[in-house]
Amino acid sequence: MKPVPTLEWTGRSLMLLDQRLLPGRQVFLDCFKVETLCEAIRTLAVRGAPAIGLAAAYGAVLAAQETPGGRDFHRECGVLLDSIAATRPTAVNLFHCLDIQRGVLAASGSREEALKAMLETAHRLLSEDLASSLALGRHGADLLSPNCAVLTHCNAGGLATGGLGTALAVVYEAHTRGILREVFADETRPLLQGSRLTAWEMVRAGIPVTVIPDSAGASLLRSGRVDAVITGADRIALNGDTANKIGTFPLALAARETGVPFYVAAPVSTFDRNTPTGREITIEQRSPDEVAGFGGSLVLAPGAGAWNPAFDVTPASLITGIICEHGVVSSPADLKILQG
Amino acid sequence: MKPVPTLEWTGRSLMLLDQRLLPGRQVFLDCFKVETLCEAIRTLAVRGAPAIGLAAAYGAVLAAQETPGGRDFHRECGVLLDSIAATRPTAVNLFHCLDIQRGVLAASGSREEALKAMLETAHRLLSEDLASSLALGRHGADLLSPNCAVLTHCNAGGLATGGLGTALAVVYEAHTRGILREVFADETRPLLQGSRLTAWEMVRAGIPVTVIPDSAGASLLRSGRVDAVITGADRIALNGDTANKIGTFPLALAARETGVPFYVAAPVSTFDRNTPTGREITIEQRSPDEVAGFGGSLVLAPGAGAWNPAFDVTPASLITGIICEHGVVSSPADLKILQG
Repeated sequence: MKPVPTLEWTGRSLMLLDQRLLPGRQVFLDCFKVETLCEAIRTLAVRGAPAIGLAAAYGAVLAAQETPGGRDFHRECGVLLDSIAATRPTAVNLFHCLDIQRGVLAASGSREEALKAMLETAHRLLSEDLASSLALGRHGADLLSPNCAVLTHCNAGGLATGGLGTALAVVYEAHTRGILREVFADETRPLLQGSRLTAWEMVRAGIPVTVIPDSAGASLLRSGRVDAVITGADRIALNGDTANKIGTFPLALAARETGVPFYVAAPVSTFDRNTPTGREITIEQRSPDEVAGFGGSLVLAPGAGAWNPAFDVTPASLITGIICEHGVVSSPADLKILQG
Repeated sequence: MKPVPTLEWTGRSLMLLDQRLLPGRQVFLDCFKVETLCEAIRTLAVRGAPAIGLAAAYGAVLAAQETPGGRDFHRECGVLLDSIAATRPTAVNLFHCLDIQRGVLAASGSREEALKAMLETAHRLLSEDLASSLALGRHGADLLSPNCAVLTHCNAGGLATGGLGTALAVVYEAHTRGILREVFADETRPLLQGSRLTAWEMVRAGIPVTVIPDSAGASLLRSGRVDAVITGADRIALNGDTANKIGTFPLALAARETGVPFYVAAPVSTFDRNTPTGREITIEQRSPDEVAGFGGSLVLAPGAGAWNPAFDVTPASLITGIICEHGVVSSPADLKILQG
């Protein structure tokens, strides 16, 4: 499986595959400035918890590049890192990667030293992400049986990470092993990451994919045509409660009702030591305009409001197992062990 | 509450408010021929189980109008009634109303006699539908407390009936009594009857309405902002299992999980004596094109398939009560009593 070209350092800028334009057009967005990158994160040109974290890690390099050297370098560069942290509130990988870069910045004497060290760190985080995806894919595929079908929600694929995915890393590995029959993908309103991105990745990889309305997931599970549900995660609390794209929680309820195992696939960096339970996770509220229409189409009756939470929290009790790069864990106690 | 002008007999034709064009445009479609009406039902210019039944009842009058008198009148008119019955498979009201008109046709000696009797029958069914809505609305509103908020799915409103609705009849009555704070409406992919039709009806009636993605229903219920879920029904089996718009089953699961009462509102004509349980209900599969696009935009990655069941079945065990014109029933035994 050739990684998706989600993000790439060009030597001076961070080049992003603009996910707002997929699947219709493959356009790359070249970010030379922190503000361009922040706008790209805010508007979902780059999205998915691990990919946002990596974009932020490279964003820290952009911050060092555009900050003049001298006495105020560390402070001014730190202000730019704060602006990256303010783009989106839920995915913990964003804060995690920025914290690492803040440490690198603090440990660096000069602007040049910081630049070099932060770039090396960003590269290392990207390599680790790809290695995590591969390991996670193997652990996940071990859970699947020959001729299996997987249902996934949103896009937890190469486009959501450094190129190989979380939930879809499992799918890619199962496909490579020849045990995957097909994938079902929730379309994932309002931004349709399932129809636009997951379906695009599956077609690219030659994997049969069928997209369904989010509301049809429960019926599909009851039909017996799905062997496992696998989703990604934006933040996992210490007790195993998991924040992920809106619609994950009702899908987990349907999986329990119909006896289909429900897995979350996420690197250990998605676990948040500072969040005891799902109740403490901040849920991003996005613009009602996303619900009122799509692309150029406006469908909402004039005078009506809309509510648009980007994520929901699935209680740990509904999750069969969390697939990470070190293995599969099924209890909060195991989570603690994994985190050391 | 002034009824929605869903369908009206003009003296020679059936005029339908074209629901495909709402909320952007209010256009009426004048059906003089059975084939025009069949196409209107198939393409959802008129939709909603009770409204389809009434349209079919008037369609029988159109059938009698376009069948020449004479020896073959009863047979030829019957063939046209069969074509109306073949438009959509799930809503039982369609078959129920056509069976009534078939009885009227069989009991009529001449074409003129049949025409007159079938038109009277259609008018009677429409009056009964409006009376049912009013009665059902009162029984449903009795279940609600002051300052309540209701979540509904799809459109079970005036547009889905003769003008006053089923689930929304309850909402209208609660609004009239001054006990309704607000309504939440699932947008209802793929055809967005919530955003386009329910929101339009609520704005028209001056009721505050907030539309949500279907996948956000579970989060909304968990937030504690909703006091009752009320949906319509396309067919209710003898054991209380209920077919309704795709997405109703997962919403009922979320309601049980979060302790919010889940009501189905439907006239007794929606109960089907010939269907013992939900397993025997035929679920209409609609075109994948409805999932592949949004408004005018094509969003599905080329090469991907789509699955588009129009309905799902909610087990009776998840339904707190069924609100009908005779009262509220909560067990299959009660259902049998109501049906006499």
